[in-house]
Order: sequence, then C-alpha cells, then structure tokens
Amino acid sequence: MPVCKGFQTDSEMYMKRIITISRECGSGGRTIGRKLAEKLGYAFYDKELIDRVAKESGLAKEFIEEQGEHITGSLLFNIASNMTYAGQVFGGHMLPLQDQLYVVQSDIIKDIAEKENCVIVGRCADYILKDRDDALHVFIHAKLEDKMERAVKDYGFDRDGVEKSLRKKDKARANHYRYYTDAEWGKTQNYDITLNSSTCGLDGCVDILYAIVKELE
Amino acid sequence: MPVCKGFQTDSEMYMKRIITISRECGSGGRTIGRKLAEKLGYAFYDKELIDRVAKESGLAKEFIEEQGEHITGSLLFNIASNMTYAGQVFGGHMLPLQDQLYVVQSDIIKDIAEKENCVIVGRCADYILKDRDDALHVFIHAKLEDKMERAVKDYGFDRDGVEKSLRKKDKARANHYRYYTDAEWGKTQNYDITLNSSTCGLDGCVDILYAIVKELE
Repeated sequence: MPVCKGFQTDSEMYMKRIITISRECGSGGRTIGRKLAEKLGYAFYDKELIDRVAKESGLAKEFIEEQGEHITGSLLFNIASNMTYAGQVFGGHMLPLQDQLYVVQSDIIKDIAEKENCVIVGRCADYILKDRDDALHVFIHAKLEDKMERAVKDYGFDRDGVEKSLRKKDKARANHYRYYTDAEWGKTQNYDITLNSSTCGLDGCVDILYAIVKELE
Repeated sequence: MPVCKGFQTDSEMYMKRIITISRECGSGGRTIGRKLAEKLGYAFYDKELIDRVAKESGLAKEFIEEQGEHITGSLLFNIASNMTYAGQVFGGHMLPLQDQLYVVQSDIIKDIAEKENCVIVGRCADYILKDRDDALHVFIHAKLEDKMERAVKDYGFDRDGVEKSLRKKDKARANHYRYYTDAEWGKTQNYDITLNSSTCGLDGCVDILYAIVKELE
C-alpha cells in the first residue's frame, strides 16, 4: 500500500533526487539527513562535501568547516578578515578568501546535484539549488530543551552556556546565509517542508521525508 | 505496515487530537484541513466556528468572517473603527468590538479543543492552543502561480490583480496575528510542520498529516 497515495503526479510534480537539509544547531538535522540518505540509497554530503572542497580549493578543512556556513563575528570583523587574504588570486580575479570558498562550494554542490542522487546538509545548498525541480528543500528545527540536551550529550557542548552557544551558532548560520543569498535562513517559504523534530522524533522525520520522496518517484 | 514506523512514542511525544491549520490564501490549506478532518473522523471548524461565534457573541457572521482573522486597513483606521463601537459593554468592561471578537473566539477555540478531536482552520488557533501537547500546528503555503490559479478558479477572484489581492489578504492575516499575539504569522518555529502544497499536492499533504497523527496515537 502506498504510504501517501494521494500524491498527484501531474506535470508540476517532480521526482526528488536531491534533498537539501538546513537545520538549527542541535535539532538532529544532520542525523536525519544521514539516515535518510542511507534509507534512500542516496549519496550523503556533509563532511564529505568539506573533503571535496578542501581537495579542489587547497583550503584547510578547519577553515572550510567553520567559514563555509558561518559568519561568526561582526560584519566589520569579517570584512577585515577577508581583507587579510585579499591578495589571493582566484579565477583571474582578486576575491576575499571566504567568498572564494563560497564560489568553490557552490560549484561543487551544483556538480554533485547534476551527477548523483544525494542528500546535502547545510552550506546554502537549498539556495544554490533553488531552481531545480528535482530538489526537495527541508528545514529541521526543535524545542530549545531538546536542542540543548542533544548539544551537550552528542556534540560535547558545555552545559554551562549551552543555550547561548546554540543561539550564537544559529545566528552565525543566518548571517552567512543572508550575506551570500540576500534571503532569510529558516523562512517557511524557502522550503518544501519544515519539521519540528521534537514532535516526530528523528526517525519519524526520516520516515516522513522518505515517504515524500518515494511517492514523487 | 505502519507508515512512519520510526516515530518514538516516548514521554515527550503526544497523541495529536487537535490540528490547527494556518495557511496562505490560495494554498489550499482549508481544503487540506477539511479532507484531513474527514479522514481522521475529527470535527472540522472553519465556517462552523464562525457560526458558533455568531451565536455566542451576537455579532454578524460577515463581521466575524472578515474581522476574525484580518486587519485590513491601517492600524489607525482599525483603532478608529473600534472607537465607533467602544460603547459596547463586555464582561463588565468596555472593549473595542474587534477585541471582543478575539476574546469570544479564543474562548470558543479553547472550549472546542478541550471537548473534541478537531481540525481548526486559521483564527490564531495555533497561538491560542500553543501550550497544549495534544495539538499539532500546521502551516500550508504554495507557489504563487498555483495560489493565483486556485484563487481565480475556486474562490472567484478576478484574474486582473489577483496577485495583489492575495498579498493583501496574507498581509491582513499577518497583521491580525501580530496585533493579537505579538508573534510572527508563518514563522517556521511556530509550527510542528509546514508544507508547500505545490510540491506534494493537496491530497499528499493530507496523507502526510494523517500519517503523523496516526503514528503519534
């Protein structure tokens, strides 16, 4: 019996062979992405994306991991940081290092999406692939207490100040997203589906997303 | 076979016997709500809510329909309109008519939620019932072209200026919501799930929501 037998597969509905997962820190979005990829038999890009960006750009993995989806300081601080690296030549042009990273990362995300069925976590992938009809864009959020618990238990955050750390991380993601896309991170209308993982559980979220992908095949 | 077998039914997860549906105008959210209620065997409150508010408040149905979830003019216009009715006595106090409506409507929504399994469309029900663990809060949006098409075909909007009419209606809903709740209408974090009905189709949305409710039973 089909899980969601009501899906209309008319010309406006497309098979979703690319899933982008944006997520609040501590919401379990990365785990949902990994499990969904396993269940679908799709490639999973999270650390794997960082490895590939490092290989193709020559940039350090730590730099990519941190700067590839966060703007942590003030805008002024980031402009100053970028100025330090402004002497790097990139494609015949001079680009600040963080902007170079965004360009390389975007090209790799587009290339991956073109070539294979995949789940990509974070890194503005939803925006970069927003015009693809075969992409499903997902945002995962959760109750603050659940995010705090997960951050301490699974990611090794200090219990003291964990709430502040989570807010800072999400703010840095939102700043990065706005800086590069001029759009709002986490805004309902940017996604096909947003889920509160506290309501359904991580595996419940995986099952809902799996059902949507399978029914649109 | 359970649709979403991964749902963890631990102490933090509750059966959802109340569904609130907030929706962009033209997204098909009302239809999704009606079909979901039928499928679940839950009561459905849309026009039915207006009838009950009319009965208990003595206000005209047309007034309730329009003012019960929209602030259409400027704030100043609304204050002026309310002043006109400021002489009405309500619970021993003088309250502007639109505020009286909000109070009656909220009380009725809380009463319904207490007494029966139900789907309630619009009218800040998500905010009014936000502290209930047995409520699932849903927001439905859609691609602009689909909303325009639906508004013309199903709701009788003029094709000329339909885009503007839809924006105006949603803006009035957002204003009303902000005025009474001091919160943001359509914000991801206010809902357990948001769905783009253009991606899954109306029946697909019904099936996803049905699966969530059934798995949390």
